[in-house]
Amino acid sequence: MTENNSIYNLSTPVVLIDENIVDANIKRVQSYLDQAGKKSRPHIKTHKIPRFAQKQLDAGAIGITCQKISEAQVFADAGIKDIMLTFNIVGAEKMEPLRHLNEQVTLSVVADSAATIEGLAAAFDGHKPLTVLVECDTGGGRCGVQSPAEALALAKKIDAASGLTFGGLMTYPSPNGEDDVDLFFNQTKALLDEAGIACPVLSSGGSPSLFSAEKAKSATEHRAGTYIYNDRSLVRAGHCTFDDCAMTILATVVSRPTDNRAVLDAGSKALTSDLLGFSDFGYIVDYPEAVISGLSEEHAVVDLSACKDKPKVGDKIRIIPNHTCVVSNLMDQVALHRNGEFIEMIDVAARGRVW
Amino acid sequence: MTENNSIYNLSTPVVLIDENIVDANIKRVQSYLDQAGKKSRPHIKTHKIPRFAQKQLDAGAIGITCQKISEAQVFADAGIKDIMLTFNIVGAEKMEPLRHLNEQVTLSVVADSAATIEGLAAAFDGHKPLTVLVECDTGGGRCGVQSPAEALALAKKIDAASGLTFGGLMTYPSPNGEDDVDLFFNQTKALLDEAGIACPVLSSGGSPSLFSAEKAKSATEHRAGTYIYNDRSLVRAGHCTFDDCAMTILATVVSRPTDNRAVLDAGSKALTSDLLGFSDFGYIVDYPEAVISGLSEEHAVVDLSACKDKPKVGDKIRIIPNHTCVVSNLMDQVALHRNGEFIEMIDVAARGRVW
Repeated sequence: MTENNSIYNLSTPVVLIDENIVDANIKRVQSYLDQAGKKSRPHIKTHKIPRFAQKQLDAGAIGITCQKISEAQVFADAGIKDIMLTFNIVGAEKMEPLRHLNEQVTLSVVADSAATIEGLAAAFDGHKPLTVLVECDTGGGRCGVQSPAEALALAKKIDAASGLTFGGLMTYPSPNGEDDVDLFFNQTKALLDEAGIACPVLSSGGSPSLFSAEKAKSATEHRAGTYIYNDRSLVRAGHCTFDDCAMTILATVVSRPTDNRAVLDAGSKALTSDLLGFSDFGYIVDYPEAVISGLSEEHAVVDLSACKDKPKVGDKIRIIPNHTCVVSNLMDQVALHRNGEFIEMIDVAARGRVW
Repeated sequence: MTENNSIYNLSTPVVLIDENIVDANIKRVQSYLDQAGKKSRPHIKTHKIPRFAQKQLDAGAIGITCQKISEAQVFADAGIKDIMLTFNIVGAEKMEPLRHLNEQVTLSVVADSAATIEGLAAAFDGHKPLTVLVECDTGGGRCGVQSPAEALALAKKIDAASGLTFGGLMTYPSPNGEDDVDLFFNQTKALLDEAGIACPVLSSGGSPSLFSAEKAKSATEHRAGTYIYNDRSLVRAGHCTFDDCAMTILATVVSRPTDNRAVLDAGSKALTSDLLGFSDFGYIVDYPEAVISGLSEEHAVVDLSACKDKPKVGDKIRIIPNHTCVVSNLMDQVALHRNGEFIEMIDVAARGRVW
């Protein structure tokens, strides 16, 4: 590496993505899911960058997962051909953009209520049919029908709508909820078989349950996102080490008001306030004993009490965030590098696409 | 209002800003600071929108406060002429943009260390001099020198640098810390007088201490931000009522999986994870008894147990966020309206300017 293209010359705070680690993470997870007999449909919320989605597809993913129409449109425009929107799309004003997307790519959405299905059915009658999966609450406690009987009723409703095609079942499971996924999916599948309704896709997902995906035997595909970058929460979960974390935030020490206090130029606008069960706001790679004890929007206050060596004003340090996906959503661009050698700034093209 | 331009026709989630309330909030605070004998230098972090800064100036503000060069540049390019950057600007790569900004507007920055001052002095020698205030830690526990003696030493250092001009003292106080501000400012002012160093500006700030600004008698100006929109935290603090909150997030109920659970299409990408001491993630105007108990990136899980009336799938509801500034930083655009009548989408021009 020459001095000139070191990441340490970048203006801070800046989000760094190590493409070597990205490549290794994609390879590792695709290989795991191949062995587990699950198709991979990565969730792009972690990176929000079409070229990284393309890397995932090149490695063997069958398509991508998005949650909002406006972010899916970014990936469709970049040439991605198969997108599952794991969201109840509700509201008259969303139907024209959804039809547009459905004309452009192989699209599927999910629904967990008659109201959602009725809205979709009215909007797609007479158009290219929209594939709809039934979302099942297998213990995650968010969206989803509460029982196989409800799932059957909605599947019938989708099947009966001329503008819709029943696509299968989808769940966002609770961590280690593979048995519950299997129970719900198998019971529903039996009801669908009885009713003569084909169920081509049984989609489970999530990063917390990624490396136990093979235990949900009924699932045909798995949707995980965070693994491409990894973060402090996945290190805690035992999924990876700090060396497997592709995203770091480069920050500068801008103040050393007292012997045990440092202040960084990266606040909640760079690290987010997501604690994810931690009591501090990130892991400082260069000073593992340091504690990011408080954030305001542009400042991080760091407690250095436990540190033998302490940074000085002007030092640049790297932070592994608690939760990587929400950091991506703050940044218009991230800095690509390989092992510290800066490559280029790239747009986080689907950042901020909230609807 | 005609049906067509109702805010309820907008695609959700969307951040709504009621310009009537903005105007009233600006008028109220300018009038308060006028009576308190303090100049107003509003912090633009809350809105990040040049036209709102111009409203604040038109009402009587003397200039604006920013924290980062890149956000200040947005306001300079929009014609704002007086900007205080309340940040230690550190790092060789930041000096050319800072010089550029200093040529364009009446600029001041702050410093709390010899290292920061030395970096600035080297960069501005031979250029238009940069005004530098000394940042004082009067109890806020973030940046700032710890004693009047330290403040004096840095003031002398600034005064002696050919490229720098000493501009005064600046603090971000602790809530209700006006006595501490006065003590620190008065003691330092006396030392500066003895040393024959003029101290034109004594700048205090913050929204928590806004309506007690008159108690910090030594301060010549006050920097507050949040008052332009207000939020749930300022309602709790007794600064305003929910009716004074200009920002609401319009969201759609996309799922009603159980009798007591609703799921909204606004998650941490719209509301942020900032709890600010609350135990839930916002105040639902239309269902005050509802509790936003959990957020993921695109979903809010709402506990309806305490609600007599309950929303159904497709209903649009409005949320007052815990902390308004961090919501602004998520959105490329916000929807301006007056009392529910949609006016236009406007760019949050300085969103995401982190360095």
